[in-house]
Amino acid sequence: MPLIDIEVIQGVFSDEKKRAMISKVTDAMVSVEGEAMRGVTWVRIKEVKSGDWAIGGQPLSAADVLKLAAE
Amino acid sequence: MPLIDIEVIQGVFSDEKKRAMISKVTDAMVSVEGEAMRGVTWVRIKEVKSGDWAIGGQPLSAADVLKLAAE
Amino acid sequence: MPLIDIEVIQGVFSDEKKRAMISKVTDAMVSVEGEAMRGVTWVRIKEVKSGDWAIGGQPLSAADVLKLAAE
Amino acid sequence: MPLIDIEVIQGVFSDEKKRAMISKVTDAMVSVEGEAMRGVTWVRIKEVKSGDWAIGGQPLSAADVLKLAAE
Amino acid sequence: MPLIDIEVIQGVFSDEKKRAMISKVTDAMVSVEGEAMRGVTWVRIKEVKSGDWAIGGQPLSAADVLKLAAE
Amino acid sequence: MPLIDIEVIQGVFSDEKKRAMISKVTDAMVSVEGEAMRGVTWVRIKEVKSGDWAIGGQPLSAADVLKLAAE
Repeated sequence: MPLIDIEVIQGVFSDEKKRAMISKVTDAMVSVEGEAMRGVTWVRIKEVKSGDWAIGGQPLSAADVLKLAAE
Repeated sequence: MPLIDIEVIQGVFSDEKKRAMISKVTDAMVSVEGEAMRGVTWVRIKEVKSGDWAIGGQPLSAADVLKLAAE
Repeated sequence: MPLIDIEVIQGVFSDEKKRAMISKVTDAMVSVEGEAMRGVTWVRIKEVKSGDWAIGGQPLSAADVLKLAAE
Repeated sequence: MPLIDIEVIQGVFSDEKKRAMISKVTDAMVSVEGEAMRGVTWVRIKEVKSGDWAIGGQPLSAADVLKLAAE
Repeated sequence: MPLIDIEVIQGVFSDEKKRAMISKVTDAMVSVEGEAMRGVTWVRIKEVKSGDWAIGGQPLSAADVLKLAAE
Repeated sequence: MPLIDIEVIQGVFSDEKKRAMISKVTDAMVSVEGEAMRGVTWVRIKEVKSGDWAIGGQPLSAADVLKLAAE
């Protein structure tokens, strides 16, 4: 049953990083809910276009987020 | 930036379990994206009423899920 | 895989009607995608509070919708 | 008022199948809520990228789903 | 067509404030898209339970947000 | 905390119009919730493919919406 949606800005994370997110977030959920729930734990990644996600009215680009991540 | 929504059936998880989900899922995300992103990592839990979540047309109750989790 | 979310205003549909929605919408999906997909077809109903759903800036109450449905 | 979101993996269903989903799911909803509600029944299809939808931590590709559908 | 969902923590905003949000956000959208689109502009408010919305792993209560708003 | 998602059909609004939506909708929210909340007010734009958004079972194209907007 649990459904986990991970929303990020497009172009920030590589496919490899996205696979790691899916795997680690699934494990984190299963560690709380119990191993029997693994098969019904769905995780999805959804990407929002660079520039279409704003904080305080300021659109964030993928480059902005990568700069923040590198700090 | 990352926004993680965890959707579960109401009445399955205690407040304590929900706190653990928030904490562990945040840590899982930060382990991939980098510690600098922790402050902009949002995690939310949303509950769907027992009976309003169906698989293959069969509504699941909180009791059904608890039984599955105990297996 | 398919996930279908049905959003309605709280208080408009009885539990019996919501069960019928789940069943008929599942069957409609399966008629297109094929019977083999039934077991991974999830349908959920989510309710928005009366007054918290607006069209053209005018909040709709459950009563407004029931009046419309009766026309 | 009702809003129905159908989420599928990109590349699984043809445009023709997606049109059929919209038409049949709308009819299914209207059969429960009443014909007067047809004009305010919104149905949308949203696609998640192949590989970005995981079950039990295993990413599903469009090919995986097509194989399942053919069983 | 446009659909705007406003998500807030339950207990932070009065019904009066929520009505003001619906009205002002609708007007803001219409000022960009044109008056002809008002009738198909839907705005909804969705509330997440106090404690079920976390930033950086720290759950926010309605009281936390009210304190922030008063600063 | 507030999260505002604006969903539109792809190809209807230019990047400039989308920037205006983000700016004006953020200001509309802040005018209700108070200036102290600006920094935690997130606004996102999400686009649904032309043809994948239907009203009353009739898919809308970007062209249909542009025609309506011009009326």
